[in-house]
Amino acid sequence: MSGMLELADVHPPIAALIEEQLQQVAFIFERQLASDLSAVNALCLHIENYRGKMLRPTLVLLSGLAGGGLPCDGSCLTEKHRTIAAVAEMIHMATLVHDDVLDEADIRRGGSTVNRLWGNETAVMLGDYLISNAFHLCSTVDDPSINLALGEVTNTLCEGELIQLYHRNDCGLDEETYLEIVRRKTASLIAECCRLGAAISGSDPRTCEAMKNYGSTLGVAFQIQDDLLDLIGEEDVVGKSLGRDMIKGKITLPIICHLKNVNQTQRGEALRLIAENGTDALRDHLHQSGAVERATEIAAGLIEDAKGQLTHLPAGEPRDLLMTLADAIITRSR
Amino acid sequence: MSGMLELADVHPPIAALIEEQLQQVAFIFERQLASDLSAVNALCLHIENYRGKMLRPTLVLLSGLAGGGLPCDGSCLTEKHRTIAAVAEMIHMATLVHDDVLDEADIRRGGSTVNRLWGNETAVMLGDYLISNAFHLCSTVDDPSINLALGEVTNTLCEGELIQLYHRNDCGLDEETYLEIVRRKTASLIAECCRLGAAISGSDPRTCEAMKNYGSTLGVAFQIQDDLLDLIGEEDVVGKSLGRDMIKGKITLPIICHLKNVNQTQRGEALRLIAENGTDALRDHLHQSGAVERATEIAAGLIEDAKGQLTHLPAGEPRDLLMTLADAIITRSR
Repeated sequence: MSGMLELADVHPPIAALIEEQLQQVAFIFERQLASDLSAVNALCLHIENYRGKMLRPTLVLLSGLAGGGLPCDGSCLTEKHRTIAAVAEMIHMATLVHDDVLDEADIRRGGSTVNRLWGNETAVMLGDYLISNAFHLCSTVDDPSINLALGEVTNTLCEGELIQLYHRNDCGLDEETYLEIVRRKTASLIAECCRLGAAISGSDPRTCEAMKNYGSTLGVAFQIQDDLLDLIGEEDVVGKSLGRDMIKGKITLPIICHLKNVNQTQRGEALRLIAENGTDALRDHLHQSGAVERATEIAAGLIEDAKGQLTHLPAGEPRDLLMTLADAIITRSR
Repeated sequence: MSGMLELADVHPPIAALIEEQLQQVAFIFERQLASDLSAVNALCLHIENYRGKMLRPTLVLLSGLAGGGLPCDGSCLTEKHRTIAAVAEMIHMATLVHDDVLDEADIRRGGSTVNRLWGNETAVMLGDYLISNAFHLCSTVDDPSINLALGEVTNTLCEGELIQLYHRNDCGLDEETYLEIVRRKTASLIAECCRLGAAISGSDPRTCEAMKNYGSTLGVAFQIQDDLLDLIGEEDVVGKSLGRDMIKGKITLPIICHLKNVNQTQRGEALRLIAENGTDALRDHLHQSGAVERATEIAAGLIEDAKGQLTHLPAGEPRDLLMTLADAIITRSR
């Protein structure tokens, strides 16, 4: 958590409560993956190192608190919240493991990726094992509506990844299509985490809808920041392989902004650098053309929209923390 | 269906009934995968060619009939049977798409594989899309116990694949471990298809258990026959890339039997051929040492056990067809 945001600076008792709940989420996560096969357990132990920000579980819990009314003493948070928080993290983890195969990435959270250590085959199957366990764990809460909702979200998530692959190396990709990809592949799950957290606490439909919109908008901003870091971040700070987007032909928002901002000569130069995976050389151009600034602005605008959704919520500590978390999404350097 | 077994030779009206139900299953399958994105639809259209034997849906339906009592007029088969049949086929299809990535296979059902046509990345994501849709479709039947049961099965299935990868190139793999891998990666889903078919028809626990045992035993025999065909089949008859097991370091039952049957010199020769992927050269040795015969015997023994489980069922057309289907599992050449 500490890398992402300092909830403790805002409301220490609530931050401590979330921290304690996250430990229970981690316990549920580990218990679900325990197998009678030691070879399987060794793999699962490795990917537990991938659990860094715990953004999705945090959002389930904070949305659960926000939807639970006052006083905010944590009594509204149930085993159902914690289980769904673990499910969301497991789905996310599965996408990380498969993304690393797709990206041929070597580093994740400062350690070696599964594909790097055990090969692509094991990474593909381990990702499948995580998806399967996520759905199995989800079924244990005995609420078919949640199975249905999360199944729909993972369909959407995969569609996002598939359109992204379809547009690989497409330097004509426009902002609208980019945002559609990001809404599906990243924001859909984050939005559902926020909606489910509130819904499990018994929130009214309007609050659930506001939480979903908050998560969706924040999710897009989160991905824009990820894409910015892949281009202009520092690998030892971010803790994963960088410059992979360009190598894998993913055209992201800063590039789209750059190609829109520059003249014909500069555009030709940029296309040449993209074709040659010249991330280092392109970095200066992205700053000079204002593309980095523009992408940052777009993300900042989305964060303002996300915070605007929170005005539908009653004032209180959970709302303050959701505000703080939204700001941290785009100020993070990893 | 025709490639697998000729149900029509046994009970034409019931065979026609199953055929008609399978068309409805195919319709549910296609409707589930329909996306608002044309790029996604194009991929799904391609993998519909993979639907060949429809073994798992057939087993759900036949078990549903067998568990539905007499007269066997098909009235016991519900939308729930057909939906679960489609779910099972979708799970199976996902494993095919990911298996082809793992096996670096080029051919599937006589056509090109997804990884061959669109690359490994798209094949990984398409497999994920199929898994996700399978769970989503499963959630639509609004029966959490089925979600839970199928989630458990897919966990087991992935574990089977993971231990198989762990034992890659392990020429010391024994028959017991081989059977454990096969029980998990192949038989678990087939067993659950049989159990669920009967359970949805309201069968008593004893019948459900017998159907599960039937499916589990038959599933192991099915995989042994697949492994035999990979070694001694003909590619244009089988319709998929052959000899892949050896190339990918999968030690299967015929090889295990061979290494057990031969003297030290022959063993050394076999290990050399395995290391060099000399499937063609090894084929004659496998016949000469009696390894092919032995593996065939083991599969035949399992089929007898599977048929033995059917004695717990009332006599009738569905039982006859399940008997016929069991025999067809090991007489098939593709």
